[in-house]
Amino acid sequence: MIIVMKSGCSQDEVKAVVKRIQEAGMREHISQGVERTIIGVLGQNILGLLDMLQLLPGVEQVIPVSKPYKLASREFHPQNSIIKVNDIAIGGDEIVIIAGPCAVESKEQLLATAREVKADGANILRGGAFKPRTSPYHFRGLGEKGLKILARAREETGMPIITEVMTPGDVELVASYADILQIGARNMQNYTLLDEVGKTKKPVMLKRGLSSTIQEWLLSAEYILAQGNEQLILCERGIRTFEPYTRNTMDISVIPIIKKVSQLPIIADPSHATGKWYLVAPLALAAIAAGADGLMIEVHPNPDLALTDGPQSLTFENFRRFMSQVMSIAQATGRKLATSDIKVKS
Amino acid sequence: MIIVMKSGCSQDEVKAVVKRIQEAGMREHISQGVERTIIGVLGQNILGLLDMLQLLPGVEQVIPVSKPYKLASREFHPQNSIIKVNDIAIGGDEIVIIAGPCAVESKEQLLATAREVKADGANILRGGAFKPRTSPYHFRGLGEKGLKILARAREETGMPIITEVMTPGDVELVASYADILQIGARNMQNYTLLDEVGKTKKPVMLKRGLSSTIQEWLLSAEYILAQGNEQLILCERGIRTFEPYTRNTMDISVIPIIKKVSQLPIIADPSHATGKWYLVAPLALAAIAAGADGLMIEVHPNPDLALTDGPQSLTFENFRRFMSQVMSIAQATGRKLATSDIKVKS
Amino acid sequence: MIIVMKSGCSQDEVKAVVKRIQEAGMREHISQGVERTIIGVLGQNILGLLDMLQLLPGVEQVIPVSKPYKLASREFHPQNSIIKVNDIAIGGDEIVIIAGPCAVESKEQLLATAREVKADGANILRGGAFKPRTSPYHFRGLGEKGLKILARAREETGMPIITEVMTPGDVELVASYADILQIGARNMQNYTLLDEVGKTKKPVMLKRGLSSTIQEWLLSAEYILAQGNEQLILCERGIRTFEPYTRNTMDISVIPIIKKVSQLPIIADPSHATGKWYLVAPLALAAIAAGADGLMIEVHPNPDLALTDGPQSLTFENFRRFMSQVMSIAQATGRKLATSDIKVKS
Amino acid sequence: MIIVMKSGCSQDEVKAVVKRIQEAGMREHISQGVERTIIGVLGQNILGLLDMLQLLPGVEQVIPVSKPYKLASREFHPQNSIIKVNDIAIGGDEIVIIAGPCAVESKEQLLATAREVKADGANILRGGAFKPRTSPYHFRGLGEKGLKILARAREETGMPIITEVMTPGDVELVASYADILQIGARNMQNYTLLDEVGKTKKPVMLKRGLSSTIQEWLLSAEYILAQGNEQLILCERGIRTFEPYTRNTMDISVIPIIKKVSQLPIIADPSHATGKWYLVAPLALAAIAAGADGLMIEVHPNPDLALTDGPQSLTFENFRRFMSQVMSIAQATGRKLATSDIKVKS
Repeated sequence: MIIVMKSGCSQDEVKAVVKRIQEAGMREHISQGVERTIIGVLGQNILGLLDMLQLLPGVEQVIPVSKPYKLASREFHPQNSIIKVNDIAIGGDEIVIIAGPCAVESKEQLLATAREVKADGANILRGGAFKPRTSPYHFRGLGEKGLKILARAREETGMPIITEVMTPGDVELVASYADILQIGARNMQNYTLLDEVGKTKKPVMLKRGLSSTIQEWLLSAEYILAQGNEQLILCERGIRTFEPYTRNTMDISVIPIIKKVSQLPIIADPSHATGKWYLVAPLALAAIAAGADGLMIEVHPNPDLALTDGPQSLTFENFRRFMSQVMSIAQATGRKLATSDIKVKS
Repeated sequence: MIIVMKSGCSQDEVKAVVKRIQEAGMREHISQGVERTIIGVLGQNILGLLDMLQLLPGVEQVIPVSKPYKLASREFHPQNSIIKVNDIAIGGDEIVIIAGPCAVESKEQLLATAREVKADGANILRGGAFKPRTSPYHFRGLGEKGLKILARAREETGMPIITEVMTPGDVELVASYADILQIGARNMQNYTLLDEVGKTKKPVMLKRGLSSTIQEWLLSAEYILAQGNEQLILCERGIRTFEPYTRNTMDISVIPIIKKVSQLPIIADPSHATGKWYLVAPLALAAIAAGADGLMIEVHPNPDLALTDGPQSLTFENFRRFMSQVMSIAQATGRKLATSDIKVKS
Repeated sequence: MIIVMKSGCSQDEVKAVVKRIQEAGMREHISQGVERTIIGVLGQNILGLLDMLQLLPGVEQVIPVSKPYKLASREFHPQNSIIKVNDIAIGGDEIVIIAGPCAVESKEQLLATAREVKADGANILRGGAFKPRTSPYHFRGLGEKGLKILARAREETGMPIITEVMTPGDVELVASYADILQIGARNMQNYTLLDEVGKTKKPVMLKRGLSSTIQEWLLSAEYILAQGNEQLILCERGIRTFEPYTRNTMDISVIPIIKKVSQLPIIADPSHATGKWYLVAPLALAAIAAGADGLMIEVHPNPDLALTDGPQSLTFENFRRFMSQVMSIAQATGRKLATSDIKVKS
Repeated sequence: MIIVMKSGCSQDEVKAVVKRIQEAGMREHISQGVERTIIGVLGQNILGLLDMLQLLPGVEQVIPVSKPYKLASREFHPQNSIIKVNDIAIGGDEIVIIAGPCAVESKEQLLATAREVKADGANILRGGAFKPRTSPYHFRGLGEKGLKILARAREETGMPIITEVMTPGDVELVASYADILQIGARNMQNYTLLDEVGKTKKPVMLKRGLSSTIQEWLLSAEYILAQGNEQLILCERGIRTFEPYTRNTMDISVIPIIKKVSQLPIIADPSHATGKWYLVAPLALAAIAAGADGLMIEVHPNPDLALTDGPQSLTFENFRRFMSQVMSIAQATGRKLATSDIKVKS
């Protein structure tokens, strides 16, 4: 921690700051500049010291130096985390494709989609049974019935399933069906929920909140890791900006940044980020080119009849064409899809 | 709902849209412009029709006309909602002051603060027992012990208490102590929690999420109202922008806007919005001048020793001076404080 | 300047940084922490050193300590700047009201407005002769003809006039008519224009760009001050956020912040910030309550026939009522309007 | 244009709106809904009618239907614009690489860089002679001396040059040297400058302002096109968000959107968007994968000695490696670099 004193602060003010530092069991290091005095603080940072020092007279600014997250920091975990789901490895050399409808609507809808995306090379099936909806009057998902349909699709296709859990009280139920628990963007700072999924032994995918900084996102990851669950995947799904054309603005730069500062794998969700099906492929390809470990894509047999998120869902035909494009970009970056033996029908 | 067709769309595309409208049990109204065809849709909007129509060939844009919230709309509730907490009325002619520490830290800290703010004219005591914290390593509140201390302060001072509930599993517990349940900004779209507090008969204060639009906020309010709980108060606490000087940017314009579009009372929280104690008074006065129904202010006996949010807390002395300023502005807007008989010691 | 080295950096990396610091004629001060090495840099900062150091191996972060603006900083100018325009003082104890139409449309329109706002207590007349417009197809102002009409209104009413100058080539022309030169939000970083108005001896009002930080705004102010023109007034007119209800989001907190960090006066323009006439009064009152030195308000004889910005303009009747509200709030903050002898006709 | 009346508006209010529409020489089309009356307006939209109608009593909302830009709209120009600079075509099948230092610092620096980037496959040389700088105390470029150095580098290498023009008074001078005139982000709404470059016959590259919507950007493009200059290229360089890690947030989604709504070519500038050299390659690859027509990349012989933007500049070695990555991604998208015969030395 570094304390920048105001220009013209008094010696007594400096002494008072030093006294507080020493009371906290730390040591100070004073640098007298031309304009200002700077005080370095040495030792293990104690809770709230930064906030306290900020209030003392003569203090201009207190600058934290250590990163506030440890378990999610590559500094302490130089090797990539690799999350295993059956025989699929997320965060390794291969690109993982998660696909399926936004919401589970019926057995027919889900099974048809599952068969199609598997045939096209997807690795993991997505589908929401509990849906967070901006309006209380919209379709909120089939609940446990939806989970059962997902399990049925897994049985038939062999694909592991990922589905969202929205509230701590549902964690046990959802974990009893799902292979990966998804935490949605609106729940990125639902700390009780983070604690609860941290206590399970299930892989978790944590979406970035739509106005969250990278540091806040990694601190939310830290909540889950701190409970002992290291099976953690991050997912970028767009941030809120002033631009009205897209639902959100997908932050592609976060992909190489996460790769640099954290060991955790990162997946991109261009369907939610853009809200428009015709932007899904270009943004997905961009994410792969920028180094994403995988993609999460919404696919629906009849997007114009979908109960949720129709406008951003790919048709089966579009998904097939999409997969062959993804494969080309993957190869161009020296990687391949986790399912490399698919027959591309472009 | 209004459908704008692409310029140069075909008659068949128009017919397909009309067919879909009629299948949904609604009627169409076609206007043939110089450049474009516009189709008005008449009748009760059914679920998801807008999303579906957006996907049809030839459709440029689908524009909703009805507001998506009803229960939170002044259009359907021309009279101001007035929320009664004991003999305090929130949303009426008088300005209500909520004050207290960010977090309950000890009986001594809370009681000292409660006595002071009551003497200075505050109406309701705030204090967090469950604290949402960005980092898992920070102080997360005293939990039920904190609630008991709050109850003790109410007993002694007679002030009703407001405290945050963070998760559905705690609603019953917190409601058994609190007079008003607070939903924090990070939980504005925690829909299960909104449902749960909607089922209680307790007044609820719903903070605006830090990247939420006004419409999303009112839709979250709609969740609570839809469960039958009309004892609802809104609270603006700053939105996230690119400006790093303040923690958030307090959106003062939301105050007159809420007054125009909704019947619900609105409170301003300049302590969280600014993150700096010396900005609390100017922003609080601004909020009152703009028509806020009340203020929520953080006060602490020793801000530089506070476990949370010290930098934005007022000292007792600052709070006293602050209250006399608030009173002046209130009078200038033709209103008065709910506690009008305080002795101002400026 | 403070250099934070990466945890685990080598001694050679530290030495290389120190060498570079010494080559720049400055001295270093090394603090060896538990996790990291911190290097303080002492001496006059030379151009670009910060950027260079950031690139050296082993460097985690370089933190500037001195503020990048000097002439616009209260640290170096503890007394408020007071800008005199005739007998009006901007930045002193009195609140100054600038009012008039968005654009000068005709002699009749401007004179009628000038007479009305003067009678109601306004001090300075506004009116655009050169209008920055998002679309090339919109009305771009009357140009010099508009300036002549403004001069005519000044002659008749005695009010000084403020009008926008958009491009360096027009500075001489506009300065030959105007009493205050206005730099619009879109031109806040038009540096050639800032240089040019800095070279005149006319007072300048610099609006904040709609995505500018406070520091960038003060650096733009520094451009004007650095040319020797200290007759500078700042004007907040809203920043761009994700909220679609208002045209921009007025940042009221910038008012007390500017008052704290700079000696320059600050005016608020709620007409442009909100884009809606019914939000002008509440935001104007908020700005005064927060400490603004004045207001700039759009008034038009027939807002629904205005060529620009009709929806945000007050009618004469609304402006009259507005002025009496402003006066009340001003008094409540212990100040008064610059024109104190007006007869309020509420 | 569509007018949505308030629910419960009177017949007289509807009549008043209709009267105004007819006075403007247009026709109305009334749809009576269950809750609301909707009025369609048919005919050529006249200036300001929308704004006027918005103010009439009973009007809830006025919705424009036609796009406000025509010359920049693909609707009216289905074919891609292709901008020719010597034998280089921007906007066609080949990807164009613009490279060079942020600022021209010396003949040695520029020539060394020009030779290197040409050898590595770049097509156009960049270098700033006039630099917009946030602070008046920073290096503002060599001015005409810099232009002469650029011309010298063109002479030697045969590469066309692009350089920024900051103010209308410099357009003639800069155009006498440059092959492409660059309008920087801060000048995107410097309308006089847009008019002036529109009057030249030189190709222009228009950067997106850092808080500009797509529509505003295309309206600024419209300014240039409206002057008869169709040699126009767009350039995305990042928008301002709340995320502090990167200088700006590169909006990759704007690339496919521009391709959809406009005929104009679009270039990506990941150097300015990210502000960090190690993010340049991933974002550049992402831009190409998303369909960009080219890239603009900062390269410097000694980034840690650069006078401007060192931290975001690639070294020669990094640029070489970068070009081979770009080539791979280009191929994967079925395109190739404009300079296809380079020897890649990865």
